[in-house]
Amino acid sequence: MSPVTRAELEALDARDPLAPFRERFDLPDGVIYLDGNSLGALPRPTAKRVQELVTREWGQDLIRSWNVHGWIDLPRRVGAKIARLIGAAPDEVVVCDSTSINLFKVLAAALRLRPERRVILSDTGNFPTDLYMAQGLVELLGQQHEVRIVDERDVLNAIDDQVAVVMLTQVNYRTGYLHDMAAITRRAHERGALVIWDLAHSAGALPVDLNGCGVDFAVGCGYKYLNGGPGAPAFLFVAKKWQAHVRSPLWGWLGHAEPFAFELTYRPADGIGRFLCGTPPVLSMAALEVGVDFLLEADIEAVRHKSQLLGHHFIALADQELVPFGFEVTSPRDPNRRGSQVSLRHPEGYPMVQALISRGIIGDFRAPDILRFGLAPLYVRYVDVWETVMALREIVETRAWDRPEFRRRAKVT
Amino acid sequence: MSPVTRAELEALDARDPLAPFRERFDLPDGVIYLDGNSLGALPRPTAKRVQELVTREWGQDLIRSWNVHGWIDLPRRVGAKIARLIGAAPDEVVVCDSTSINLFKVLAAALRLRPERRVILSDTGNFPTDLYMAQGLVELLGQQHEVRIVDERDVLNAIDDQVAVVMLTQVNYRTGYLHDMAAITRRAHERGALVIWDLAHSAGALPVDLNGCGVDFAVGCGYKYLNGGPGAPAFLFVAKKWQAHVRSPLWGWLGHAEPFAFELTYRPADGIGRFLCGTPPVLSMAALEVGVDFLLEADIEAVRHKSQLLGHHFIALADQELVPFGFEVTSPRDPNRRGSQVSLRHPEGYPMVQALISRGIIGDFRAPDILRFGLAPLYVRYVDVWETVMALREIVETRAWDRPEFRRRAKVT
Repeated sequence: MSPVTRAELEALDARDPLAPFRERFDLPDGVIYLDGNSLGALPRPTAKRVQELVTREWGQDLIRSWNVHGWIDLPRRVGAKIARLIGAAPDEVVVCDSTSINLFKVLAAALRLRPERRVILSDTGNFPTDLYMAQGLVELLGQQHEVRIVDERDVLNAIDDQVAVVMLTQVNYRTGYLHDMAAITRRAHERGALVIWDLAHSAGALPVDLNGCGVDFAVGCGYKYLNGGPGAPAFLFVAKKWQAHVRSPLWGWLGHAEPFAFELTYRPADGIGRFLCGTPPVLSMAALEVGVDFLLEADIEAVRHKSQLLGHHFIALADQELVPFGFEVTSPRDPNRRGSQVSLRHPEGYPMVQALISRGIIGDFRAPDILRFGLAPLYVRYVDVWETVMALREIVETRAWDRPEFRRRAKVT
Repeated sequence: MSPVTRAELEALDARDPLAPFRERFDLPDGVIYLDGNSLGALPRPTAKRVQELVTREWGQDLIRSWNVHGWIDLPRRVGAKIARLIGAAPDEVVVCDSTSINLFKVLAAALRLRPERRVILSDTGNFPTDLYMAQGLVELLGQQHEVRIVDERDVLNAIDDQVAVVMLTQVNYRTGYLHDMAAITRRAHERGALVIWDLAHSAGALPVDLNGCGVDFAVGCGYKYLNGGPGAPAFLFVAKKWQAHVRSPLWGWLGHAEPFAFELTYRPADGIGRFLCGTPPVLSMAALEVGVDFLLEADIEAVRHKSQLLGHHFIALADQELVPFGFEVTSPRDPNRRGSQVSLRHPEGYPMVQALISRGIIGDFRAPDILRFGLAPLYVRYVDVWETVMALREIVETRAWDRPEFRRRAKVT
C-alpha cells in the first residue's frame, strides 16, 4: 500500500459533501475534537434556542409553556425525530430519563415476556452501566435471573434457549467493534430470545435499521453523536408489536393514561407513552432537539461513508507512523465491523492522551491502555487524522508524554 | 374581624424584608404569578449562567468541563446546598433524575430494611406519581406488598406494625394541608416503620428539619419553590445512619465506587453517591443551582413567615369577597397546618381560573373543582392577594368566566 499523504487527506476534505456542517458547530479555534463519542460538539443554534427557552418560554410564558410551546410533547416529538435516524416508526421512540434508567425499563419489560427463561446475555464490550443496571434488576427480582457476560465474538454462539434477552451495545465503547445487529437479532429470535440494543455509539453515527432487523427494544444516548449537550436525555424504542403487551416497571405520572386526571391508581398510557415516567428536563430536551435536527439534515449514508473513510485513513496512518513505536490498532480493520472511532493500545496511553490534549487534540483514554479517537463526521476533517497521528508520533519520539502533569489522573477520564 | 383593605396589604409590602427578591426574578410585566408551586419563576441570573454553560463550558472546553468546571460534582454540590434548606447534612443529599425515579430508589431501599413487613402507607393527598411508583414497585416485586392509601387525617392512626414504610408528601398538592413531620415520623418509628417524605411543596417554601425529626429518607422537586426551571432534576436524601445499609435498586455507573474503572460488576459507592445512576443533565442542573442559591440567600424563617401571612390574608379576603358567591376555602385555616398555597373550591373552577389567567393572574386548576394559588414569598406581593381575590370576585359577579374559550381543556392543566 502506498503511504498516506497529507495532500491526499486535504483532497478528501475539499470534496467532502459534509464539510459545510463543520462551520455550523461552535468549535474552539485550533482544537481537533475527537471525543464526540463521549460528548458531542455544540451546534451553533443551540445557545440561542436554549436562551429563548429560558428567557421567553420559561421566563415570560411560565407554566403556560407546557401547552403553548408544546413542552409536554417534547418526549414524543424529539423521539419521533430520532426514530428517523434509527429505522423506527415515529410512535416507537420517546426521549426521557437517562440511558441507564431506560435500559432498566425495557429490560424489566422484556423479562416479563419470557417468564420461563432466566438468562440475560451480554458481552464484555457492553458499557458497564448497562451491565450494572441488569445486575441491579436481577438483585431486585430476587436473584432468579443471571447476567451472563461473554466475549463479544462469542455472542452469536452463546444464544441458547435459556436466554430470555440478548442485551448489547451495538458499538463497543472501547474498541469500536460493531455488532451485526441483523444476524444477532435473527439468531436470538430463532432461539426464542428477545433483543435490547443500546445505540449509544450508533445513533447519529451510522444507519441503524431497528425495524428492518426486527429489533424488540432499544435505548440510546443523546449527548454523543446526537450532539444534545452534557447529560442530554436519552431515548428508548419499543417495537410496535410489543407496546400493548409490556409495561415499564417505573410507573411515573407522565406514563399514565391521563396524567392530569390525578387518579390514585396507575393506568398505563396507550403506546410508547407508557414508558415515560417523571417530568422531562425541558432545557436539556430543547438542546437535544437542535442536535437531532442537524443529523436529520445530513444524509446518514454520507455520514457513514465519511466515518468509514476517516477510520480507514486513521488506521493506515497509525500502521505507518505509530505501530513501529509499540502501538497496536485495537479497532476492527473491517470497516463493516467498526463504529465511528479508532482505538489504539499502548501501555503509556494515559499520559500520551494528556500530552495530545495539551496540544489541542482531544481524544480520551479508557482503562487499562486504550487511546480512543471518536470520528464524528459532521465536524471532523480528514486532515485532522493526519494532524493527530503526526502529533502523537512526535510526542512519542520526543518522549514529550513523560511528564508528571500528564500522569496525574483526573476524576473523569 | 375588621375587613382586609388594600392599604393594609400595601403597608405589609412596604416593610417586607423579602421584597427586594422580586426584582431579581425576570417576571413578565403586569403578571401576578401564583403558580410557583407548579413551575417556579425565572431568577434573573439563570439565563446568563445557562448561556455561559452552553457556550463556554460545553462549546469551548468540551469534554474537559467534567473536570475543570466540576460538572461531575454537580449532583453532590447542588445536593449539599439543598441540604441546608431541609435540615440535612451536606453528604446526605444528591441531585439527580426525577422525583418519581428517586422515590422508587428510596422506597426499594427502605422495603429491604423491613423485610418482614408488607404495607406501604400513604394518603389520598399524596401526589399521584408517588402512589404510581409505589404500585409499580409492588408489581415488580411480585405483589407481596400492599400500597395502603388512607385519608390524610387518618395517617397517624393507620401506622400499625404491618407498616414497613410511611410514604407521604409533606404538603398536599391540592389543598396545601401540611403534615406534622415530627409527629408522624415519631409514630412511625415507635411502630417500627420507616418514613419517606416527599418535599415537593416544602423545600424552599418552609423550614424543613429532616434530621431534627429523625427522617429516614426524603425526595423532592427542583422546579417548584427552588425555581430550577422546567423539569429541573430532583433530589433525594438518605439519613447518614442508613447509607451503609441500603442500596439503590438502580445500579447506574455514576453510583459505582469507581465509575471510571469501567469494571464489569457493580460495586456501590460509599455514602450517598450510591444513589446516583446515569449521567446528570448538566444544563438543567446548572439552572437549578442558581435557583437554590437564591433560596440560600433568603432567611427561610422569613420566607415561612411571609408565606403564612400571605395565606392568612388570602383566606380572610376570600371569606369576605368570595364565600358569598359559593366558594369554599379548602386549605387549612391553621397556618401551622398549611403549606405555601391557598386553594378554593367552586364547581366552575376551571373556566374561572382560565378567565383569571386571561387577565394576567396565573393560578391553576386541579380536578375536580380546585382553584389553586401558590404563594412563593420571594416574588409574590401582599397586594397580589388583593388583586387576585378582587379580580376573581369581579369575574364571578359579571359571569366573565362563562365563555366557551375558558371551558376548553388544555393538555396540561
